[in-house]
Amino acid sequence: MTTARSLGLWIDGANSLPAGTHNAITDVPGVTVGHRTLQGDGLATGVTAIVPHQGDLFRSKVRGAVEVINGFGKSAGLVQVAELGTIETPILLTNTFGVAACTEALIRRAIEKNPRIGRQTSTINAVVCECNDGQINDIQALAVTVEDAYAALDAAASGEVEQGAVGAGTGMTAFGFKAGIGTASRRMKIGKEGFTLGSLVLANFGRAGDLVLPDGRRPAPGEVSGPEKGSIIVVLATDLPLADRQLQRVARRAGAGIARLGAFWGNGSGDIALCFTTADPVPHDGPDFQTVRAVSNDHIDIAFRAAAEATQEAILNALCAAPAMTGRSGKKFPSLADWAREHNR
Amino acid sequence: MTTARSLGLWIDGANSLPAGTHNAITDVPGVTVGHRTLQGDGLATGVTAIVPHQGDLFRSKVRGAVEVINGFGKSAGLVQVAELGTIETPILLTNTFGVAACTEALIRRAIEKNPRIGRQTSTINAVVCECNDGQINDIQALAVTVEDAYAALDAAASGEVEQGAVGAGTGMTAFGFKAGIGTASRRMKIGKEGFTLGSLVLANFGRAGDLVLPDGRRPAPGEVSGPEKGSIIVVLATDLPLADRQLQRVARRAGAGIARLGAFWGNGSGDIALCFTTADPVPHDGPDFQTVRAVSNDHIDIAFRAAAEATQEAILNALCAAPAMTGRSGKKFPSLADWAREHNR
Amino acid sequence: MTTARSLGLWIDGANSLPAGTHNAITDVPGVTVGHRTLQGDGLATGVTAIVPHQGDLFRSKVRGAVEVINGFGKSAGLVQVAELGTIETPILLTNTFGVAACTEALIRRAIEKNPRIGRQTSTINAVVCECNDGQINDIQALAVTVEDAYAALDAAASGEVEQGAVGAGTGMTAFGFKAGIGTASRRMKIGKEGFTLGSLVLANFGRAGDLVLPDGRRPAPGEVSGPEKGSIIVVLATDLPLADRQLQRVARRAGAGIARLGAFWGNGSGDIALCFTTADPVPHDGPDFQTVRAVSNDHIDIAFRAAAEATQEAILNALCAAPAMTGRSGKKFPSLADWAREHNR
Amino acid sequence: MTTARSLGLWIDGANSLPAGTHNAITDVPGVTVGHRTLQGDGLATGVTAIVPHQGDLFRSKVRGAVEVINGFGKSAGLVQVAELGTIETPILLTNTFGVAACTEALIRRAIEKNPRIGRQTSTINAVVCECNDGQINDIQALAVTVEDAYAALDAAASGEVEQGAVGAGTGMTAFGFKAGIGTASRRMKIGKEGFTLGSLVLANFGRAGDLVLPDGRRPAPGEVSGPEKGSIIVVLATDLPLADRQLQRVARRAGAGIARLGAFWGNGSGDIALCFTTADPVPHDGPDFQTVRAVSNDHIDIAFRAAAEATQEAILNALCAAPAMTGRSGKKFPSLADWAREHNR
Repeated sequence: MTTARSLGLWIDGANSLPAGTHNAITDVPGVTVGHRTLQGDGLATGVTAIVPHQGDLFRSKVRGAVEVINGFGKSAGLVQVAELGTIETPILLTNTFGVAACTEALIRRAIEKNPRIGRQTSTINAVVCECNDGQINDIQALAVTVEDAYAALDAAASGEVEQGAVGAGTGMTAFGFKAGIGTASRRMKIGKEGFTLGSLVLANFGRAGDLVLPDGRRPAPGEVSGPEKGSIIVVLATDLPLADRQLQRVARRAGAGIARLGAFWGNGSGDIALCFTTADPVPHDGPDFQTVRAVSNDHIDIAFRAAAEATQEAILNALCAAPAMTGRSGKKFPSLADWAREHNR
Repeated sequence: MTTARSLGLWIDGANSLPAGTHNAITDVPGVTVGHRTLQGDGLATGVTAIVPHQGDLFRSKVRGAVEVINGFGKSAGLVQVAELGTIETPILLTNTFGVAACTEALIRRAIEKNPRIGRQTSTINAVVCECNDGQINDIQALAVTVEDAYAALDAAASGEVEQGAVGAGTGMTAFGFKAGIGTASRRMKIGKEGFTLGSLVLANFGRAGDLVLPDGRRPAPGEVSGPEKGSIIVVLATDLPLADRQLQRVARRAGAGIARLGAFWGNGSGDIALCFTTADPVPHDGPDFQTVRAVSNDHIDIAFRAAAEATQEAILNALCAAPAMTGRSGKKFPSLADWAREHNR
Repeated sequence: MTTARSLGLWIDGANSLPAGTHNAITDVPGVTVGHRTLQGDGLATGVTAIVPHQGDLFRSKVRGAVEVINGFGKSAGLVQVAELGTIETPILLTNTFGVAACTEALIRRAIEKNPRIGRQTSTINAVVCECNDGQINDIQALAVTVEDAYAALDAAASGEVEQGAVGAGTGMTAFGFKAGIGTASRRMKIGKEGFTLGSLVLANFGRAGDLVLPDGRRPAPGEVSGPEKGSIIVVLATDLPLADRQLQRVARRAGAGIARLGAFWGNGSGDIALCFTTADPVPHDGPDFQTVRAVSNDHIDIAFRAAAEATQEAILNALCAAPAMTGRSGKKFPSLADWAREHNR
Repeated sequence: MTTARSLGLWIDGANSLPAGTHNAITDVPGVTVGHRTLQGDGLATGVTAIVPHQGDLFRSKVRGAVEVINGFGKSAGLVQVAELGTIETPILLTNTFGVAACTEALIRRAIEKNPRIGRQTSTINAVVCECNDGQINDIQALAVTVEDAYAALDAAASGEVEQGAVGAGTGMTAFGFKAGIGTASRRMKIGKEGFTLGSLVLANFGRAGDLVLPDGRRPAPGEVSGPEKGSIIVVLATDLPLADRQLQRVARRAGAGIARLGAFWGNGSGDIALCFTTADPVPHDGPDFQTVRAVSNDHIDIAFRAAAEATQEAILNALCAAPAMTGRSGKKFPSLADWAREHNR
């Protein structure tokens, strides 16, 4: 797969952190990713699933937080994550009009496993985030179905993550280039222990002409562009023990990663970041008290740095992995990889 | 219809405001309400629609705000309302697992009227709020359909509002009593101008034994109850000219109305308040600048008072209008009206 | 001391919690309260100190949260509490123009104990909250000094708390009555363990005619009143193990206690609630990881209930303990205790 | 004065906006800036005043908003700005322990002009922001006095703004280099009307080795550095008509400007942005209703872009204008201007 590193577009700074084995969100132990891609007949869309751990998420919720960088978006489930700080379903990414189907899929799957849901115990909070792929995909077709969501969930696997025009990223664009799904990870050492933080993005944001590469170059896609629309969803996963407030603060740093590429979180862009830790999950029917481990704030900067860096690189990877594509109205979205090869330094 | 006033349960204070003509959210000019009720075969659920004005809401958005009092809820569309301060669809209320169908209905209706949505212009932000009626209704049946949402929208009318066990309120309970939909309104005079603020609630919250009536009495439903679950959705409508921040602040005061009845916004309760004004709607394709009128903060207390009072009374109305009902597990939810008649002072 | 209970004004509900030994914030082990009262020469003001524990707070910070119910206020230190969730000084209450002096006092005291502050280690975040006592006190005199703050800190003691027109409460009024400092507490049992939550208020809010007693009566102070101004500061202390997000959620419930008395958090009122737990303090120079115990959300309702109840009763206590007083402009602020004795049921 | 442009360090992108006449916050009509610098005897500190307009700010408040990017800070007045959206004093910047003196100065000045403050009318909300200059300045001396604050206010002038080690910036550092006060501005055209947005920063943040210049170079100050501490205060001023929510959203974009330089809003950094508009100020005793003009969200991206760009350049200007300085412990803080001349491309 073509990545920012394989094209020489990523540059480490003096304090940069090393990437994980696959430079992917799946470097966080237990986290898996699956795609369902829909193409043909005017469609270029899909679903991407991020599964925080391989147990029953309703019975063993991961602790998480959401940061709304710019809230022009139609995601589901964020209000409850903000209140309770727990995520109890896989996180699904899709196009704006696929949220309802993905929500239903997560509800049905959860009820299958836990028939008490909504009856003897509480209901289930499905987390689904979205971007608008309407420049390439026929979004009005409402093509994403409950079965597509199941397919993405069933495809979830560890190891290398397919990036670019795949799953929810199939029809997405960024800075006037073709984009989609990207991921990256960072390893962190605190005391004698090692941890990993991974970022997976659905990149569909940024106005043409605004992109700034880590080396200062500013690739233009060759076509004048309208105002920034689209959106970006950032999912941050880590095994670092973080407290409630720390999760929120790490999520916020995704915005720094986005901004470093020249974006300013445009009005029409739904820029949402989720962050969860696999440490100390919360049991659905737990004991009266739970003990949670958390890193000292004296060391939290390493997680902030990891979140900003991994998000910045994940976006570049989304841009590098996606081949050029033509939109519904005939507008061309070139490939950043082609640009990079042409402008080789 | 049986109301708190008809039972003598409402008491005005020294500074209380007068109610509007129908003592309903529909006293705000242009606002209509419609219900779709589903009953039988284990079902006791439905949809309630609040339509902010009778034009095309996508083309002429009302300005609004959302206050998450306690975010244990699965509502749709709140993130964008919080960011942009506009509501561009009718507001639908339903049960927790009906959100996806109601969302799809609002999207389809909007596209019908505005085929450019998601293609040449932005997508649409459907606002759907919910409570869990699983104590009475078979919520796992996922019974609410797109057509049910259409039916509620089509039934929307001005004038008196049917309350209690109707629409989204069909299977809801509060403080151990049967509850559901309730509404009330207040008239406000500022300078020489008159305005109205109306509150409509979907009341499904409060632990048995906690209810305090305005006269200090504490009706108990006669059965020991578990922890507070359920939820309450409050929709506040007004024609008072309010600025962005003022809308948010008025929405927050719904929480005072809830608390006055003895509730404390329980952990498992999704307590959400929306507030919109029909003054100075925002055109979808508007001029470069818009002029918005706003009341001085020196007079905003009247709107705060109206929001707290109307919400408190709307909840009492939901309780008074709903006849006794038996839940799925055989548990009885008595009628507050029966209690009031029995305990007549 | 005259209290709501001694006057028969407090009524327990079916689910109410028992009060602690002194029915005061000092029932939480380790918490002390001290007053410095300034009276004469047109002055009626002072400082009240709440000390979360008896060690060095900078070196062993209590975990806490702040809820801004209505932010018309000039408190110091809240932004950092909101970000980090720790309180590293005693909490001082005073009049609006006394904040600067109290802040300086907390800084100087902290540097005395920890000379590395601001040099080799971080600076110190002084927490000072305020209400405007200008109706009775000559606030423009800027009478509160650094020494007054020291005096309140030095007076801090456990056991019974002096209430009413004392310390920061000396010149405060509420609902047209004389008010000031009030406190109350609740005992909570979770599993086999017992915990306490205490509330201390500086009550200076509420419009005349709006007060509703727990028995439904509405005492009027006999004079028509202007719009609600003033403010209320609520400090909640507990030894219940709470996580970051839970502390914030408990703080929010102070607003329910205020609203139950008929207030609606008026525009001109700075209604601020702080909540801290003495469980698992955060060391200034701690180990890389800390382990924090937290109650399950399945039991958090008991803390919500305690916060709402104790705050409601603390406000009543502030009203009951304060004798009648005449304001700067000759306006009389009667005593609620006198009213209660006159209107004995 | 040495600036990023004079050193060739600023690079415009394809969509960049032009700078204003002085490339300073004073390009916004009516806005003035004044400094008071304290140096010698171990001191290197001061006060910087930003005066939003030349009338009586208490009587004619500018509308504004605050964005807490990372709240490790001790600023005064932010809670009320967040609630009411108005700023009624000049904005003072100083060192962390100078906040109390600056607050008192603003209160005393306001009472001088409006003797009714705190008596017949409300109190005054002083806005004071701070960074910790303890690496160079003897902060424990609490050297800043009420008179120093008066001096900064009295020095406020329009036109060119002195930058670098001046006023509140005297002892500040960033990314291991000497820094302090910086400013920049952008011109915006909407329809046929022209507007200006200016940014003034007090830059005291960023870890050595993290700075990324617009051309991608990463200047290192030559000394290994500890974790990111310090802070940055950003004040954004504009004459663009903005509504409440828009002001908040523009303020948030200051964070993008900071992040583009390689920072990630570190744990120990108090990163605070204020944004105000001089359009449609709010009268203290105004009419019942006010009419406010606001730009359409379809054009708000231009203000977002201006805020991010001007803040990024203002920080670079703070770095470029400040000569090298030696800290209290002998640590050297080199000059970015020297670095730039040495590494001339």
